[in-house]
Amino acid sequence: MSFIKTPVKGMPEQLPADMELREYAMNKIKETYKRYGFSLIDTPAIEHIENLTNKQGGENETLIFKILKRGEKLEKADKISDLCDGGLRYDLTVPLARFYANNMSSLPTPFKSLQIGNAWRADRPQKGRFRQFTQCDIDIIGDNSNLAEIELISATSEMLFQLGLGDFNVRINDRRILKAMAAICDFPQDKYDDVFIALDKMDKIGLEGVMNILKSMNCAKKFAEENVHKYCNFFKEGIYFDSCIDFLGNKLDGVLSSEVINNLNDIILCVRKIILNKGKVVFDPTLVRGMSYYTGPIFEIELVDKSNLSSSIAGGGRYDEMIGKYNDNKIQAAASGFSIGFERIVSILKSKGLKPQIDSNSTAYLISKNLGYDSIENVFVKANTLRGKGQRILVSPKSKNMKVQIDKLIEQGYNKIIEVSELGEHEIILR
Amino acid sequence: MSFIKTPVKGMPEQLPADMELREYAMNKIKETYKRYGFSLIDTPAIEHIENLTNKQGGENETLIFKILKRGEKLEKADKISDLCDGGLRYDLTVPLARFYANNMSSLPTPFKSLQIGNAWRADRPQKGRFRQFTQCDIDIIGDNSNLAEIELISATSEMLFQLGLGDFNVRINDRRILKAMAAICDFPQDKYDDVFIALDKMDKIGLEGVMNILKSMNCAKKFAEENVHKYCNFFKEGIYFDSCIDFLGNKLDGVLSSEVINNLNDIILCVRKIILNKGKVVFDPTLVRGMSYYTGPIFEIELVDKSNLSSSIAGGGRYDEMIGKYNDNKIQAAASGFSIGFERIVSILKSKGLKPQIDSNSTAYLISKNLGYDSIENVFVKANTLRGKGQRILVSPKSKNMKVQIDKLIEQGYNKIIEVSELGEHEIILR
Repeated sequence: MSFIKTPVKGMPEQLPADMELREYAMNKIKETYKRYGFSLIDTPAIEHIENLTNKQGGENETLIFKILKRGEKLEKADKISDLCDGGLRYDLTVPLARFYANNMSSLPTPFKSLQIGNAWRADRPQKGRFRQFTQCDIDIIGDNSNLAEIELISATSEMLFQLGLGDFNVRINDRRILKAMAAICDFPQDKYDDVFIALDKMDKIGLEGVMNILKSMNCAKKFAEENVHKYCNFFKEGIYFDSCIDFLGNKLDGVLSSEVINNLNDIILCVRKIILNKGKVVFDPTLVRGMSYYTGPIFEIELVDKSNLSSSIAGGGRYDEMIGKYNDNKIQAAASGFSIGFERIVSILKSKGLKPQIDSNSTAYLISKNLGYDSIENVFVKANTLRGKGQRILVSPKSKNMKVQIDKLIEQGYNKIIEVSELGEHEIILR
Repeated sequence: MSFIKTPVKGMPEQLPADMELREYAMNKIKETYKRYGFSLIDTPAIEHIENLTNKQGGENETLIFKILKRGEKLEKADKISDLCDGGLRYDLTVPLARFYANNMSSLPTPFKSLQIGNAWRADRPQKGRFRQFTQCDIDIIGDNSNLAEIELISATSEMLFQLGLGDFNVRINDRRILKAMAAICDFPQDKYDDVFIALDKMDKIGLEGVMNILKSMNCAKKFAEENVHKYCNFFKEGIYFDSCIDFLGNKLDGVLSSEVINNLNDIILCVRKIILNKGKVVFDPTLVRGMSYYTGPIFEIELVDKSNLSSSIAGGGRYDEMIGKYNDNKIQAAASGFSIGFERIVSILKSKGLKPQIDSNSTAYLISKNLGYDSIENVFVKANTLRGKGQRILVSPKSKNMKVQIDKLIEQGYNKIIEVSELGEHEIILR
């Protein structure tokens, strides 16, 4: 019989102090989103392997923890996939789309969902990045207007503000603008995703870097140099703009309806007015977002920190075509969502040294070894009375090494420590 | 590409109303246990397959969802177990023991742990019983005195009382008493577990039923009839007793130290005095608890309900030998724990028709289709001001079928509905 005391590779454990911080952040998030009318739902950790491998999840589909069928025999299997029928979800969007398709008749329209739960990815473990992580998603399903995006972005901005995470930028774009810019430069449609992957690196490698990737790209029909120049010309004045109408001007006339552009501009102006000086709202024509299921506006929030330049903390977008796929396209449902990186939030709060306030009225009773049960009963009865008044009370045996015990109790926030022995109770004076 | 809209077999989904009830119960549980000095921790869902199959978990070890190694090739495997290195935990005790062994130097002594999380068992799905379920465990590690049991039982009693679950019985026994009774009747030691499995059925099949099982039991050395009669004689006066000292008298003299009996009696008397009339506390010599890792006092709480006679809602016991196994027995740690069936609690609250109170100040703004963005902005700004005051505010597009929309909003607890159109705002009078 084998016993292994370390956790499985890449899996996180939460000690009490970390857990207090997580609970604090979690409660703030729930509280804020509930005030915006989002309702908590829950979906199972295990999904059909088919739903996890239907090409909606991009790279994540290569990182699935797969689950063995029960009672399966090795001899009967031709390949690994014969042996497995489920997997741990790699995000909360796939389960949500399935959940909505399955339960739509019981849900209001539009449905504002709040889902908080774990997801798993067999990524290479690295500092601060685990193979099990908590995600927190809000989604609005059944609203094809941009009221959905305005709500999602302003609710999330408010949540970040409530958590005191510091200055942030909201970057907004639209997949249709991305595509129209690629189209007008005559890139072949099946190469759009490669073009966008290059563009996505702009903030790291600069315009020249992007241009070099596009020039060296190895496609059947190599991009004409003039097209690459035309494309990169779009971005030569930077990546953050106040207005997408000003930025685009008449550049996309003929390939993109002005409705798409006005729709996005309304989101930008409206969010800017709602969140005021809590964060900066910009149009960023280089914002890509990896997932291929996005169909309209896409958005990301990055924290602006001197030590931590532009780190993305939340991202999302509109995905109007996904839910219909779970219904053989019988019922389409417009959908837009925002996924918040809970682990990032917790690690930032931790690095800021935030300590959630502990009840100021915490008492520990330390019971001496040979105390009679009549006296012990009395301590417990008194402790329960105080607990009934909302106080945190610990009843514990006195340790041999009382100094260590007292230090640990102070660390846990106990501000009154009472020793109970045959001689009665006496309070220990804390330094 | 395949899309399946139903959940994986036996996996639960939580709709918003269910989720509200779960959140309500969860918060009450956390709140109560925190007042007793328990600290939240968290452990990963995936455990080493070795830890899940080391004969600590009894029948549960046959119900594991196993996880495929990443990048494994079928050809290299001789048997299914070569292909898998992890599994989903079937309870929270195995992860806790591992966690404590791994982190003991950072934890206070005694450590009072509160763990709430999902566990998975590939059980036959049935009504109200799912393959993913939430468990809620409290454990006290590093306290070898019965202060631990007194705390565990009185905290859990208080929690059930706070949730208003109705009358309950606390049944208490000790594995050492169980064993001594079997020993004094000359049952062979390797048959104790079979004897206890029979005894455990007393409340369903009565004393005669138990006797028949024992008589017909097919062991190498068949039980002598007089031993079976001697054993069953213990229980002929029923199964609930006020005092284990009165019950046992001198029956176990010579095979069990009086210390064990006094220890248990002190727990019973002390808990009875602490929880007073919130629940009945009894010694039940037929209480068995399945897990073989228990070493001392064991306990269970059952609800007493006219419609739902004696349904177990929480169970636990002392398991002093488990944690040491994760340390090659270098460091032993006394431990006692109580596991609360969260799903049972929720289903009982639901059957009682409990509806958590929703914020009484909930307003929905319904936006007409062609409203200009200036007006929309104003609605959002106003909504955010009210949200800042703690109110729940929904901003949504007006549906074509407004009657259905309003009904659903009322169902969700919105008590003020305001239509916003080009003509301004007007409140819809609710029935």
